[in-house]
Amino acid sequence: MSGEKAGPAYQRIERHLRELIQSGAGRTEPLPAEPDVAARFNVSRMTARHAYQRLVNEGVIIRKRGVGSFVSGHFLERLPVSGVPDFSGWTEGGTNSVVESYGVVSAPAAVARLMKLKKGEKVTRLQRTRSVNGVIGLDVRYMPASIHDQVPPAEIERKSLLVLLRNAGLHIASGELEVDAHSAGPDDAEKLGVPLGHPILQRRLVYRDAQGRAVLVGTSRYPGGQSYTFGFQFQAARSS
Amino acid sequence: MSGEKAGPAYQRIERHLRELIQSGAGRTEPLPAEPDVAARFNVSRMTARHAYQRLVNEGVIIRKRGVGSFVSGHFLERLPVSGVPDFSGWTEGGTNSVVESYGVVSAPAAVARLMKLKKGEKVTRLQRTRSVNGVIGLDVRYMPASIHDQVPPAEIERKSLLVLLRNAGLHIASGELEVDAHSAGPDDAEKLGVPLGHPILQRRLVYRDAQGRAVLVGTSRYPGGQSYTFGFQFQAARSS
Repeated sequence: MSGEKAGPAYQRIERHLRELIQSGAGRTEPLPAEPDVAARFNVSRMTARHAYQRLVNEGVIIRKRGVGSFVSGHFLERLPVSGVPDFSGWTEGGTNSVVESYGVVSAPAAVARLMKLKKGEKVTRLQRTRSVNGVIGLDVRYMPASIHDQVPPAEIERKSLLVLLRNAGLHIASGELEVDAHSAGPDDAEKLGVPLGHPILQRRLVYRDAQGRAVLVGTSRYPGGQSYTFGFQFQAARSS
Repeated sequence: MSGEKAGPAYQRIERHLRELIQSGAGRTEPLPAEPDVAARFNVSRMTARHAYQRLVNEGVIIRKRGVGSFVSGHFLERLPVSGVPDFSGWTEGGTNSVVESYGVVSAPAAVARLMKLKKGEKVTRLQRTRSVNGVIGLDVRYMPASIHDQVPPAEIERKSLLVLLRNAGLHIASGELEVDAHSAGPDDAEKLGVPLGHPILQRRLVYRDAQGRAVLVGTSRYPGGQSYTFGFQFQAARSS
């Protein structure tokens, strides 16, 4: 019996919602709406509502009337920008990129949702390290399955993913970037070479095409403590 | 004898550079150029160079030919955006802002440099806490001295600083935002109510007017660990 099928329907939905939250959902955009979840799990709206209500009662999520359900106790500051990001200046200085794994996998639930894929559909998964001045960052990226055959790993070590996606006909029209701080767990400590509990800066990104479908989704983790900074510059359109 | 006047000239310059670095300089933009520092301290360029070279030898700064001196071992990822930020959507949900101190002070060196002020010139300094869902953030902001008489503290607790600056005739034309992670020291622990060593997300901001003069400069610190996220959304101009 697979994990998703075990237990009563409301528990399966609750588990699904917890997985979505774990993977970063419910922050920039609401969690899936109750009717959609009810349809997906083939249950009544009442059953879906029961799962949501349990998470509300536990203080895990809050409902914003007319907007949807969000992770609670979470303070999001977000600056919308209408303009053209210049990805060419993304990273200062020469970075050293090493592909650690690159292949086609079944899309995790949160990735499938963002890429508008069905459960079990395939995506390209990339894991790489990037280093500059001895500072190592760890990237995980999901892209459409077709990218895997179009872009060889040697290219990924030499060029920006955004340039490679564009060359493959995928143009970024919008996106969201989020940054938060956490303490290094065992996985961070091993992969980033820092002590347990070291501050880690994590960036989550979702880049979308003109139809709003995510074509590049992932996280980057870097050791904190002045060695890594993420930022952006904006320049308002001149009225003259 | 003031701190700045003590010791040989190269030591005073070295101390000055360390203070600038401490306050966030040398990351998005280079540290002040040697000739400017030599002129400011009224010493030879050779003396200024000696101070810079000591910091290079110590591994604190690196020189990028034709660009300037930067903090070393620092990995900056930066995304330039040409567009109009929408400050109205800056913070989601209702925040609770409390002014802790508000007054006119002498500009710290790094702030004076960004605001194109002379040493000792006055600026408005604001310290406030903001909370949402029990998550508390601590903001320090520097603005032109004239703001203090134009904007009463009660207004600051009710409206966005960016709106208040605009009402006072200061229009933001460009800016830089940077985010990094560090471990809570005693000051963070006390002010943010977290244990020592807790991950802290710090945001540094520099907003400039159309002449490139900084009119709002500061830092915001938030407890990390999923409770605070900073991000932005972009929407490329449509070609249709």
